[in-house]
Amino acid sequence: MFNQLGIIGCGLMGSSFALALKHAGLVARVVGYSKSPSTTDTAKKLGVIDVAAESALQAVAGSDIVLIAVPVGAIEEIFKAIRQLVTPEVLFMDVCSTKRDVVDAARRVLKERVVSFVPAHPVAGRELAGAINADARLYQGSRIILTPLPQTLPELVQKATEAWSAVGAQVLKMTPHDHDAAFAAVSHLPHLLAFACFTSVANQPAGDDYLSLAGPGFRDFTRIAAGDPVVWRDILMSNREEVLRQSQRFRHTLDAMEQVIKSGNVEALGNLIRVAASARANWHMNSNKPGSEREESKLPRA
Amino acid sequence: MFNQLGIIGCGLMGSSFALALKHAGLVARVVGYSKSPSTTDTAKKLGVIDVAAESALQAVAGSDIVLIAVPVGAIEEIFKAIRQLVTPEVLFMDVCSTKRDVVDAARRVLKERVVSFVPAHPVAGRELAGAINADARLYQGSRIILTPLPQTLPELVQKATEAWSAVGAQVLKMTPHDHDAAFAAVSHLPHLLAFACFTSVANQPAGDDYLSLAGPGFRDFTRIAAGDPVVWRDILMSNREEVLRQSQRFRHTLDAMEQVIKSGNVEALGNLIRVAASARANWHMNSNKPGSEREESKLPRA
Repeated sequence: MFNQLGIIGCGLMGSSFALALKHAGLVARVVGYSKSPSTTDTAKKLGVIDVAAESALQAVAGSDIVLIAVPVGAIEEIFKAIRQLVTPEVLFMDVCSTKRDVVDAARRVLKERVVSFVPAHPVAGRELAGAINADARLYQGSRIILTPLPQTLPELVQKATEAWSAVGAQVLKMTPHDHDAAFAAVSHLPHLLAFACFTSVANQPAGDDYLSLAGPGFRDFTRIAAGDPVVWRDILMSNREEVLRQSQRFRHTLDAMEQVIKSGNVEALGNLIRVAASARANWHMNSNKPGSEREESKLPRA
Repeated sequence: MFNQLGIIGCGLMGSSFALALKHAGLVARVVGYSKSPSTTDTAKKLGVIDVAAESALQAVAGSDIVLIAVPVGAIEEIFKAIRQLVTPEVLFMDVCSTKRDVVDAARRVLKERVVSFVPAHPVAGRELAGAINADARLYQGSRIILTPLPQTLPELVQKATEAWSAVGAQVLKMTPHDHDAAFAAVSHLPHLLAFACFTSVANQPAGDDYLSLAGPGFRDFTRIAAGDPVVWRDILMSNREEVLRQSQRFRHTLDAMEQVIKSGNVEALGNLIRVAASARANWHMNSNKPGSEREESKLPRA
């Protein structure tokens, strides 16, 4: 399907995509570049990439598919570095969790060459970052959101769809705006709350003692707080308007719950919790991975 | 070890304890009572209990160990119902997630008979409630916090320790006050936040669309929001001072994070997140269940 994949950023997301395409027999050769030479070295030693490039531009040269897998704060600089080799024959994608900022940077830097860029957000990952944790099955059963622009070349959107489908992902299309609004609610807000909750619990005089008593409920609730700090700093900053809007909504709901707790209104508190618990119990994550909901229901809670 | 176990409340916690004691060969006979006759019927049909009692008092009659497994809001009423059969020869325990309220009610109702009561909080459970989900292994690898009073009979504390150890749990002892302060931080606050977050996300015009896009990070973060509504209403109300204190702390941390996001201070946001992520990544849940941390690290995130 592809002759050469160029990866810019040989972290977990980029390396896993390279392995997945290789395992699927869809790419003959992978050229990779990372800002840190030791990351590129690791990726090469692990067989994630075949050739270590010395620059982002060198990873693009000769590639017919390029995945830019860097934190959103670094994307504009990458676009500038590779601009001269962005042509309509090559599919360019990113993996950022926000899309408006990425699309704005692409428009600004790539100008008319933006037609080659298919913005992509794989709803996948794990806390263990780096090439060392690359997993050819990372995207299996996950969802990929593509947010093509009106001028994006349809044949490249088609190629992107085929590539992600081939590695086991389900492809959805949205506008960058709708994407960012939705993920502020279901991903960025929860991360913000998890970072704040873990910090708040840990940073009190008896914090360590408390943490030593925490059970599986706390473990799962705060799991996302172990995400890559640079990635999440950039996501929260990049999508800050939507994130702050969702945080404001959340505060109103928390206010209402605290108010009924303070007033001792057992019935009202019961109603609020019943509605939340029933909605959560009836919600099931969309996934084409068989058994993923069964796994969840087996998990114990605190 | 015991001749007869009396269970008051044949839900998940009580039924699982009965099954676990039976499987360990530590009890000859189980008598169970539930407010709802259909729950008692289910427990009997599933072999969780051998005899269905028609009142809480009847479940105590002839038992040498009694587990009161009802929501904390119902505990005082149960103490009143069984008071006359509370004697120093019988071990009485509860399973409530708050301990000060329970201990206060025990003192108030049982008076000098409170010596027979060993307050217990098993840090275990799951979202699937009811006798139908009873699991003899529910307590394996979990922690049980006992909060005995100065006057609690030491031989009953010893018996309680042996019973919980026999079903695979690790027993810890704390004061009711320290217990409630700690669990407000690592359990009650996260539940409050999870209820509020799920409600806030779901209750917006595009809520259903957003929920359809949520990934495994959101699933795990909100898992505890599917907890039993009556149980959690009672816990949050019972421990409201500590819960509100923790919520106040949390809000200060959230304020600080929002402030740096609003001000566009990328470096400060990065520092806050790095500290949180590093602390969470280095935190490992205490558990005597082999492999429980390995399971966690395999979970994908959104």
